[in-house]
Amino acid sequence: MNVGGRQYRTIWVVEDGRTVEIIDQTKLPHAFVTARLTTLDDAVRAIEGMQVRGAPLIGVAAAYGVCLALGRDTSDAAMNDACRRLSETRPTAVNLRTALSRMTALLAPLPENERVAAAYALAAELADEDATRNRAIGEHGLALLTAIAGVVRGTRRLEVMTHCNAGWLATVDWGTALAPVYAAHDSGIPVHVWVSETRPRNQGASLTAWELAQHGVPHTVIVDSAAGHVMQGGDVDVVLVGTDRTTAAGAVANKIGTYLKALAARDCAIPFYVAAPSTSIDWSLQDGRDIPIEERSAAEVTHVAGRAASGQVEQVQILPDGTSVKNFGFDVTPPKFVTGLITERGVCQASREGLLGLFPERDWRLKTAGVSA
Amino acid sequence: MNVGGRQYRTIWVVEDGRTVEIIDQTKLPHAFVTARLTTLDDAVRAIEGMQVRGAPLIGVAAAYGVCLALGRDTSDAAMNDACRRLSETRPTAVNLRTALSRMTALLAPLPENERVAAAYALAAELADEDATRNRAIGEHGLALLTAIAGVVRGTRRLEVMTHCNAGWLATVDWGTALAPVYAAHDSGIPVHVWVSETRPRNQGASLTAWELAQHGVPHTVIVDSAAGHVMQGGDVDVVLVGTDRTTAAGAVANKIGTYLKALAARDCAIPFYVAAPSTSIDWSLQDGRDIPIEERSAAEVTHVAGRAASGQVEQVQILPDGTSVKNFGFDVTPPKFVTGLITERGVCQASREGLLGLFPERDWRLKTAGVSA
Repeated sequence: MNVGGRQYRTIWVVEDGRTVEIIDQTKLPHAFVTARLTTLDDAVRAIEGMQVRGAPLIGVAAAYGVCLALGRDTSDAAMNDACRRLSETRPTAVNLRTALSRMTALLAPLPENERVAAAYALAAELADEDATRNRAIGEHGLALLTAIAGVVRGTRRLEVMTHCNAGWLATVDWGTALAPVYAAHDSGIPVHVWVSETRPRNQGASLTAWELAQHGVPHTVIVDSAAGHVMQGGDVDVVLVGTDRTTAAGAVANKIGTYLKALAARDCAIPFYVAAPSTSIDWSLQDGRDIPIEERSAAEVTHVAGRAASGQVEQVQILPDGTSVKNFGFDVTPPKFVTGLITERGVCQASREGLLGLFPERDWRLKTAGVSA
Repeated sequence: MNVGGRQYRTIWVVEDGRTVEIIDQTKLPHAFVTARLTTLDDAVRAIEGMQVRGAPLIGVAAAYGVCLALGRDTSDAAMNDACRRLSETRPTAVNLRTALSRMTALLAPLPENERVAAAYALAAELADEDATRNRAIGEHGLALLTAIAGVVRGTRRLEVMTHCNAGWLATVDWGTALAPVYAAHDSGIPVHVWVSETRPRNQGASLTAWELAQHGVPHTVIVDSAAGHVMQGGDVDVVLVGTDRTTAAGAVANKIGTYLKALAARDCAIPFYVAAPSTSIDWSLQDGRDIPIEERSAAEVTHVAGRAASGQVEQVQILPDGTSVKNFGFDVTPPKFVTGLITERGVCQASREGLLGLFPERDWRLKTAGVSA
């Protein structure tokens, strides 16, 4: 996507064919900075510290983490250690585990001297696949937005609400939930996005607002708590969010607060769609309550980072010293509150039947419950 | 209530019998500072700038604002101007208008030379009445919490969730939603409070957490978006919130985000109670959609105040420059999501019938719809 007139992805390999470069998302929106990863440690830190984040992107970043590990040591032990460390960085998003499974399935049978080249080739393929999937989600979502824009109102712009950042910064390119928004904007549909700031890390305020502004899409930031009031006021035509893990029955684990938006959308009779690339689907799980929910550092809640009057980015403490905090990264929205899943193969009901209709090749797996995809 | 071993109210008159002193709530939790108000301008600024906030407290603060105005000029013109300016400070809370109506009803017929003394006497009476009402809410709420603690679980502490600050800092003393919590804690019921931080001004994180800590009540702060997930996890027995305006039909305007908590409580089958002193009831309104919702400065969303590494309280900017923002102060929870209203006369259904059962003297007013109480 476009940053100051230049095309970017969120992750790429530099000229040496080995070093991985990323947009350091912890520096946005106050500075656009890239960072170079040369070791497995760099990759682990980048994912844990959320320099790269977003379920699709961390899958690809983990694949490149395996590449960097193999660049130093091509042994089975090194590869397995890398996969273990990378898979422990973030527990909720399933894309990360899916990407690591594909890497090991390809690399384990290969002789050690072929592994590095094969790893980089597959990581690049995973990155390209992600961009292609997201473009397809954008096309399917565009059809949906076009229909809603036509049916709901012809006289004013289409009002979309999103949560957190499921834009191109959360992926390799295009985004998931925002892919249809960009497609609508580019096709001339007047569209406006309500962006909830997404405490505690403010990915809505800092990333979604930033990337929408780069692309020229009109948007308004609200605090997370205001989502219900805005929906009650009739100012939202559709809610579009991403997913970090989708069960085979259509339950959606996504950024904390998604469930509250789904409840408000239901109460206000507003369609609630989840952009769910197939890599987010955990075919081994039915019940959303079985999805592990990441708990993150209390410091994300006790402190807020922003640009101080000095121009420097600083942390300020908002809680009294010593206050007890719980910091859940995700929540689970039951399928009954999801109007539909937008996948790269089309839109379906958030149900086993809906998903199998689009992914019939997965049918046998559901017969042997508990087998991981 | 107790601050470092000394008893405080949130507002009082100092030894000169004229100057009003308040706890400056914009300085909490990082510093406990009081401020003196000597003019109407001081009072208007204190309410607008939220040095005093909370529906019950701003009613009393407005009454003292009239006192300060009359201290300089006892004319009808000065009194009316003061009431107009004070009533325009915050549009949503009805307590403010109720207090001003009582002041003018008493003062207007009096000769000018009797007004100052009468004004201070009535303002003190309004303050005492508020404390008395809140104690009664605490008693009625305690009965409810005792019942829930007994029925729901006997083996672990009672889990209460609240939103924003409806504690003693929001009132003259005792609090509304937190009055039952303090009563339960003081009576030996083990109680723990989930406190949502309450963006954009973080009254949960900065005020509720602070006052619960002062009183020794165990509590945990979460971001607003996490309320649904915590409820889904079975870790909440009851939700208790305040109200800035309650319609005669039981709709509740309260801090932005209350509606989302009510929706989650309903979905998770958790009782959702609103502590509603009679001063919060607007008998002239039925439909919650007719309550004016305050929109506040974008700066509350774009910037966050906290204690920097230097120890100074600073503002940091979290949004990209120039981002469009909407900042709604309140939302409206429809009566169907409210399990009950806890008033100073007891607990009732959030309905016209429920309220009239406790306040039968209001019945005639409902027959002439549109007549303000």
